[in-house]
Amino acid sequence: MDISKYLMETKIDANSHEPMYLQIARSIAQRIIDNTLPKGTKLPPERELCNYFGVSRTTAINAYRWLEQEGLVVTKVGSGTYVKENTNQQSNTLQVPWSQLFIPYPQTPMTSILKELVSTPYASEIISLATGMPDPTSYPLTIFHNLFKERFPTANPADFGYIPTEGYQPLREYLVELLNEQGIATTADRTMILSGSQQGLYLTSKVLLERGDYVIVQSPTYIGAIQIFQTIGARMLILPGEQSLNLDILEDYLIRYRPKLFYLISTFNNPTGQVLTEQERKDLLRLAARHRLVILEDDPYSQLYYEEKPPLALKAWDTNESVIYMGTFSKTLAPGLRTGYLTGHPALINRLSLEKQYVDLHSNNFSQWLLYLYLREGYYSEHLKFIRVLYKKRRDSLVKAIRRYLGDHISFDVPEGGFYLWCKLKSGSSARLLQEAIKCGVFFVPGQAFYTVPSEENEFRLCFATHPEAVLVEGIKRLTTAFDHIHKSKPKTIDNNPLKPIV
Amino acid sequence: MDISKYLMETKIDANSHEPMYLQIARSIAQRIIDNTLPKGTKLPPERELCNYFGVSRTTAINAYRWLEQEGLVVTKVGSGTYVKENTNQQSNTLQVPWSQLFIPYPQTPMTSILKELVSTPYASEIISLATGMPDPTSYPLTIFHNLFKERFPTANPADFGYIPTEGYQPLREYLVELLNEQGIATTADRTMILSGSQQGLYLTSKVLLERGDYVIVQSPTYIGAIQIFQTIGARMLILPGEQSLNLDILEDYLIRYRPKLFYLISTFNNPTGQVLTEQERKDLLRLAARHRLVILEDDPYSQLYYEEKPPLALKAWDTNESVIYMGTFSKTLAPGLRTGYLTGHPALINRLSLEKQYVDLHSNNFSQWLLYLYLREGYYSEHLKFIRVLYKKRRDSLVKAIRRYLGDHISFDVPEGGFYLWCKLKSGSSARLLQEAIKCGVFFVPGQAFYTVPSEENEFRLCFATHPEAVLVEGIKRLTTAFDHIHKSKPKTIDNNPLKPIV
Repeated sequence: MDISKYLMETKIDANSHEPMYLQIARSIAQRIIDNTLPKGTKLPPERELCNYFGVSRTTAINAYRWLEQEGLVVTKVGSGTYVKENTNQQSNTLQVPWSQLFIPYPQTPMTSILKELVSTPYASEIISLATGMPDPTSYPLTIFHNLFKERFPTANPADFGYIPTEGYQPLREYLVELLNEQGIATTADRTMILSGSQQGLYLTSKVLLERGDYVIVQSPTYIGAIQIFQTIGARMLILPGEQSLNLDILEDYLIRYRPKLFYLISTFNNPTGQVLTEQERKDLLRLAARHRLVILEDDPYSQLYYEEKPPLALKAWDTNESVIYMGTFSKTLAPGLRTGYLTGHPALINRLSLEKQYVDLHSNNFSQWLLYLYLREGYYSEHLKFIRVLYKKRRDSLVKAIRRYLGDHISFDVPEGGFYLWCKLKSGSSARLLQEAIKCGVFFVPGQAFYTVPSEENEFRLCFATHPEAVLVEGIKRLTTAFDHIHKSKPKTIDNNPLKPIV
Repeated sequence: MDISKYLMETKIDANSHEPMYLQIARSIAQRIIDNTLPKGTKLPPERELCNYFGVSRTTAINAYRWLEQEGLVVTKVGSGTYVKENTNQQSNTLQVPWSQLFIPYPQTPMTSILKELVSTPYASEIISLATGMPDPTSYPLTIFHNLFKERFPTANPADFGYIPTEGYQPLREYLVELLNEQGIATTADRTMILSGSQQGLYLTSKVLLERGDYVIVQSPTYIGAIQIFQTIGARMLILPGEQSLNLDILEDYLIRYRPKLFYLISTFNNPTGQVLTEQERKDLLRLAARHRLVILEDDPYSQLYYEEKPPLALKAWDTNESVIYMGTFSKTLAPGLRTGYLTGHPALINRLSLEKQYVDLHSNNFSQWLLYLYLREGYYSEHLKFIRVLYKKRRDSLVKAIRRYLGDHISFDVPEGGFYLWCKLKSGSSARLLQEAIKCGVFFVPGQAFYTVPSEENEFRLCFATHPEAVLVEGIKRLTTAFDHIHKSKPKTIDNNPLKPIV
């Protein structure tokens, strides 16, 4: 190889206190060590070295001599000077420096919270009220078992080969019926299967957003959405309000920033439980139409209502195709199915599928085959009725336990659906409470995880879906113990001991 | 809202041939139409408009009059001038312009080829020799059925809830045993489950590569890899050679470009069938160690050998942790399992999991549960023996049929494993042949799909795994018909009719 270009780049300073031969030698040594000059490379003859650097023959000879003494080159008489074959033996045994190889990543304390939440939902020794996981004992595994037992032998083997990226066609078509029942008019070519609705959020962000783009989010909102928008480098505009949608702020954002997307959990928002009223939905759609706003409506919870049936999805009134709608079976059937779905404009479905092919080619066929049968046989609506009763009781038990044991410390609104109780400490920080709670064998998600900006420190989320009522009550008792520990360890203030003399 | 800042931005040209009032009016109209000034906005009084633009009162009055005539504003006596409420009625009914919303995408003729390949592998009326799909009738569905039937009732329901992003722990641990058997020393914390090895390619590229980075690929190589590298904007350096690895070119690339990654199918490359010799593997690893090169070894086919057992994976000799190794069950069991796995440095596993949480939280539990049982019960090695015999026969039948019917037109090397026959036309283009072949009821992938740069036009890939021998032979007969059509339709040349007088 021609190494002259590397040598040409080397700057020699005649005024340096370092001898010229040493400057030259060190420069070459550097390139041997960093492998720019690999083992066996023939170095230029001394007279060429003189020419390159405009130095005397002696300087060139001394440079090579130094390299030879350092064990980096070897001189073969009558042939020339070569980079030594075993020079790199040491670096050969060096491990690849993996931690330095990755592209920059916006690391925050919340970077892996989602990952941690899905990793530890059901540990036995500690009661997790953190993860938004439906109770495993509620999964319709018996029906799944029957479907596997009775239908699998007559399944078409090709259904377990490669299938279209958009999804297993019978399931796509059946989902259209399910969506129609929920007031959403759509078609199979507007509907695709996802490996969980998390994937819909990921893919939609990937095709619509670039670094620096504006996205509107409710505040607080789903952790996984915040993380994706952060990773892409989108700028989040927050729409505060736990009970109603502030359309004035929204319109101001629309005019001022021209945001690319509004990510929204319209029904039983995670974590607040907020439900948009029918009027708010219609007003929002009008605003969206006027400003050509694209709305990503994430709807994992609307079927989990415990009082009145909530209003129809935004998508049900979406005559302008402003809305991308996502649903999932993770909260109603079992997270392990990893099956969600998305409905929107065909151009969007087409583009999302192009991206999805890179991510996983298509979603899991076993789940899609099973879900299609499960839905078609009509099991779903019965199951929904069953879990609505189950989770309503759990919500009520949790509420009752908190009012009984912690009523003085915690305030909340009772959510009309979903999985979560959004709690506010009357004093103190939820992060401090969590520290103590973990020692007492219970944990939850501190409120800050659901915000894009520093927030009140007194909020936290409890999930009432995962555990039976008795465990929920035990969890609250443990939380009460945590409160006691905090208050005991608090240095007594004068106000607490009004009779103690001031010293 | 304060609209003065928008008006301030408006430049009025006193020397324009367009009257000043019209310049002002059109500028405001533009902002009404694009919703910068939403309906109901109060416009500044005429005297303020005069001040903003330094124009006469008459000019201001004329500007508002023009806007009123255009139906954009309304003047309320004693109140002022407002953007008309129903101005946007028309745009309210406009659909969101979806096709214009997406971020730029490097669209090429090959953009959706992977998606198309997985969509159409098993249509009945046309014989597809295109998709790399194992025969659905070979999937071990009977054993899967038995496992579902007998083991599902005693499964732990929590195994179908959320699980760690890295995968179902029993499967991770079992995969370590499987990898050990294949000579790859690894541990569970170095091993993660993927939603197909396509996902490993995607995630690895995402954490290691940025736009403009260099990646080395074999040429030709797997379509899905090319697409991912193109989408990221990586620059691909190609390593040509169907039979051996050109380490000189590789080293030159390493020195010249410092590539971030070498993507490689070490055994039975797709599409060429190339296998690296043991010596090549060792030489490659030495080079990788010296240059700190990261190798992504994609290994879907090494268990599908039909002659000698191929050398151990690169990863088996990887003492420096240079190699990321990926395996999958898509080619050996069933693509619909969507389960692959990756083993590499723990820092890599950790970073990949952070990315994976956004993409799908974790892979499908039903498949992971099933695969764990299937592997643990020892069914896998018997199945591999069975499909080796099956696919060897199919390879031989395809080879025989081509030699018999098309021996004059097509040359190829017989691959010792994998799914593909890499064919070369002795004359003509494979794209032209494909046109005709589709009319005759058979199709394949033209060779250009496997290249990153314009390539020879005479190559194409046939997959011999999907169909029974009789169908393969029928496919070749149809291809023969396609050849006949092309040769018949070719205009006769003078050389073909030497006796015909030249006119």
